[in-house]
Amino acid sequence: MTQLPSHVDIREVGPRDGLQIEAPISTAGKIRLLQALVATGVRRIEATAFVSPRAVPAMADAERIAEYVGTVPGVDWSGLVASPNGATRAIGSGLRTIEYVVSAADGHSWANARRSTQDAVDAVAEVARIVHDAGGRLEVIIATAWDCPFDGPTDPQRTAGIAARALELGADQLCFGDTIGTATPARVRRLLDAVRAAIGGPGDGGADPVALGAHFHNTRGTGIASAFAAVQAGIRQLDASVGGLGGCPFAPGASGNIATEELVYLLDDAGISTGVDLDAVLAAAAVARELVGHPLESNLFRAGGRNRPRPAPADDR
Amino acid sequence: MTQLPSHVDIREVGPRDGLQIEAPISTAGKIRLLQALVATGVRRIEATAFVSPRAVPAMADAERIAEYVGTVPGVDWSGLVASPNGATRAIGSGLRTIEYVVSAADGHSWANARRSTQDAVDAVAEVARIVHDAGGRLEVIIATAWDCPFDGPTDPQRTAGIAARALELGADQLCFGDTIGTATPARVRRLLDAVRAAIGGPGDGGADPVALGAHFHNTRGTGIASAFAAVQAGIRQLDASVGGLGGCPFAPGASGNIATEELVYLLDDAGISTGVDLDAVLAAAAVARELVGHPLESNLFRAGGRNRPRPAPADDR
Repeated sequence: MTQLPSHVDIREVGPRDGLQIEAPISTAGKIRLLQALVATGVRRIEATAFVSPRAVPAMADAERIAEYVGTVPGVDWSGLVASPNGATRAIGSGLRTIEYVVSAADGHSWANARRSTQDAVDAVAEVARIVHDAGGRLEVIIATAWDCPFDGPTDPQRTAGIAARALELGADQLCFGDTIGTATPARVRRLLDAVRAAIGGPGDGGADPVALGAHFHNTRGTGIASAFAAVQAGIRQLDASVGGLGGCPFAPGASGNIATEELVYLLDDAGISTGVDLDAVLAAAAVARELVGHPLESNLFRAGGRNRPRPAPADDR
Repeated sequence: MTQLPSHVDIREVGPRDGLQIEAPISTAGKIRLLQALVATGVRRIEATAFVSPRAVPAMADAERIAEYVGTVPGVDWSGLVASPNGATRAIGSGLRTIEYVVSAADGHSWANARRSTQDAVDAVAEVARIVHDAGGRLEVIIATAWDCPFDGPTDPQRTAGIAARALELGADQLCFGDTIGTATPARVRRLLDAVRAAIGGPGDGGADPVALGAHFHNTRGTGIASAFAAVQAGIRQLDASVGGLGGCPFAPGASGNIATEELVYLLDDAGISTGVDLDAVLAAAAVARELVGHPLESNLFRAGGRNRPRPAPADDR
């Protein structure tokens, strides 16, 4: 437990990654959730995605969500894009923190974005130009950083090479996505070692050349352990989703993102501040539970915190 | 990730802790599950509990289960007891590895065993005599080692003091129970530091004076992370339950023990051998799923392993 930081920065991804696979909920409902999330104290929120409304109907109201969040100061609101066109839309909507996702594995890249990893990585340059011309900031998220549902394990050297190339092409920060929820603590460490060797990071205790983030799903039950392993390995930016919203279209029944409240609960106990209030996250999860209309994956939401009442509806198993 | 061991010893507790809160299933059904568990390669299995059949109807067939496991060599079969009378029953049934549970917190001790922690700890001497006179081995499990559902947080010094006293009174090994699933990695480290200060253990890297085990529930989603933190802190014996069977009678909807398959999945990736085959655990979980008749808590069972088919029935969410 040495080398633990005093602070970890959580990005709440429930409104985007969490709701993406749900049946579309109303823009007004989403705004209720966003308001509840702002009240948690979290200062980075992934608001929406600028992707094809045919492919992802739940994100068809991206411009309206962006318009709303433009009225809410004090939060670093981000939008996810998968192409230069998406970046143009996101910038046009007023957002200035843009996440551009590339898949480290070709199989997932073709399925998700209908092009190869190479082409997706090359496009970082154009996306960076669009974002930087508007005074924005570009984060490149490397999906399938550990494993691909089609291609199997991703060679850490491959992911590390993409990370280095994305920085050369203009990325301001990086995030590694455990897209299908297969990462484990040992493999987190292995990938981060490879990435730091490729991008010139000094490893534990020193500063990486750019901020490195990580994004875990709890699909095999190891997401929270992987997230804590990432913190132990020097990662200071973690994605999480209120209530554990989310899932994987390639694994029916699979659970979603790591739950924000479970991450906060763990970090609180370790004396690591997040600025996020656990009770307020549980209240936001109750809003999410009502909006999606089915039980949430979060164990903590179902059980209640230590010395806290159980917030989930009584019939959620 | 330094100081990781080459081997961790898993005890499968599904047949006892897992089934304890379920509606009773037939002895024949339990034997099917035990057979599936033996096939996983696990070499320590908690077979049953010798407790009041009125209080725990699911364990009313303890003697019949003990009779069966007596015919299956190669496994260290254990039985849980909560009193000297229970120990006499367990020894009489032929078992020679006895787990005696004491609650570190008075509130839980009264609720669970209708006596104070002090009285329960004092009885270690009598239980040890019964077990040792028969040539058996006694493990003392300290329940509510971190938190009590009635009394709140348990002072680590209190748990540590009970550990030291249990050793003086004859315990051959110790296990710390996260009874209501509230532990987190930082608190695991804190408790183990306190315990080692009390029992004279040398801490990381050296040998503890007796084997120390840990038992986590995943009620707040932090069970697997806590288990791995325990391994990082030098624990070499972990309890887990096939499919994540189990739960907490004090928290409706709360999830159960950490799932054996999720623990094995994580340890496999870290190069830590367990002797337990992941596919065989998933097969055993399928047996458990059929016997209990409801979806299991294990995320990995619902999603399938990396590059493995999804073993849960199609309609398990």
